[in-house]
Amino acid sequence: MVPPELEEGLPLERIRGFSLEELLGMAIKAEIGAREFYKSLTEKVEIQELKEKIGWLADEEKKHEELLRRIYGTMFPGKDVVFPKEHIGPELKPVARELHGVQDIIDLIRWAMKAEEIAAKFYAELENMVDTEDKKRLMRYLSDMEWGHYYNLKAEYELLLDWEMYSQMMHVGP
Amino acid sequence: MVPPELEEGLPLERIRGFSLEELLGMAIKAEIGAREFYKSLTEKVEIQELKEKIGWLADEEKKHEELLRRIYGTMFPGKDVVFPKEHIGPELKPVARELHGVQDIIDLIRWAMKAEEIAAKFYAELENMVDTEDKKRLMRYLSDMEWGHYYNLKAEYELLLDWEMYSQMMHVGP
Repeated sequence: MVPPELEEGLPLERIRGFSLEELLGMAIKAEIGAREFYKSLTEKVEIQELKEKIGWLADEEKKHEELLRRIYGTMFPGKDVVFPKEHIGPELKPVARELHGVQDIIDLIRWAMKAEEIAAKFYAELENMVDTEDKKRLMRYLSDMEWGHYYNLKAEYELLLDWEMYSQMMHVGP
Repeated sequence: MVPPELEEGLPLERIRGFSLEELLGMAIKAEIGAREFYKSLTEKVEIQELKEKIGWLADEEKKHEELLRRIYGTMFPGKDVVFPKEHIGPELKPVARELHGVQDIIDLIRWAMKAEEIAAKFYAELENMVDTEDKKRLMRYLSDMEWGHYYNLKAEYELLLDWEMYSQMMHVGP
């Protein structure tokens, strides 16, 4: 089941149907969405270790948004960012509901992993579409960073599946 | 050239020649070494963005050391940790010398990437050697976390190779 915080977007192959300007706009929108998702999640999660990790991800996405805006600024000087209504891959939205138990957290982390994975592949595709070595390098940077997030989330996900051990090993609880 | 902060260890295949107790000891030693390496590096690096990232890695390795000591404690209760003198893969040591320019930083980050990659593979091998599902899960956790570090470092590495762009995009400098 797809949770309400996630909207399944277009498949990655659809990337070719958009201009670079639109794709950068989508990327900026996705970073903002991911940040708001992680930020809202830190407020719902009570496990200190996980709260800190998710807070770190929120800060990272903020930096990526700023970096993408600078890239956009150099590629389309003086233009406002165009935000297409479509998006490639899952789009994360803020968590408004109360979370009940660890299973809710596990489900959300699984979707965040999916979003990070698609984001990593999205930037790798953009690398092929931009024209200069420096722009390609920036896309590789963003792709690698998203892979970093993906593996960080995957690690937590794996351990959360065995809650008893997680709480024991992470010194969670009273 | 191998920098003085790095000692090339045994190839990964040699893992089979050690007991699980020795391998966990090596892992703990490697986490301590990685932490001291990153900690010393934060004191040498003047690029704020990178300083923070490396500081985050140092904190992560500290948590891994603690987690491994808890795992060791559950597997070999009451025993002191055995630290073999050998180590699998590159071992990071504190950076004592002054760094001159960005190339020195790039070289060190490349080696740190190598060490993180081997660490990720090392834990994946340990996953096959431990006997219960919960221990396997912990090894997957550690392996995934090291892959996370690897991609984080790879991202910075890629961008540092074009220093002019790095400083422009990361707002480095006065």
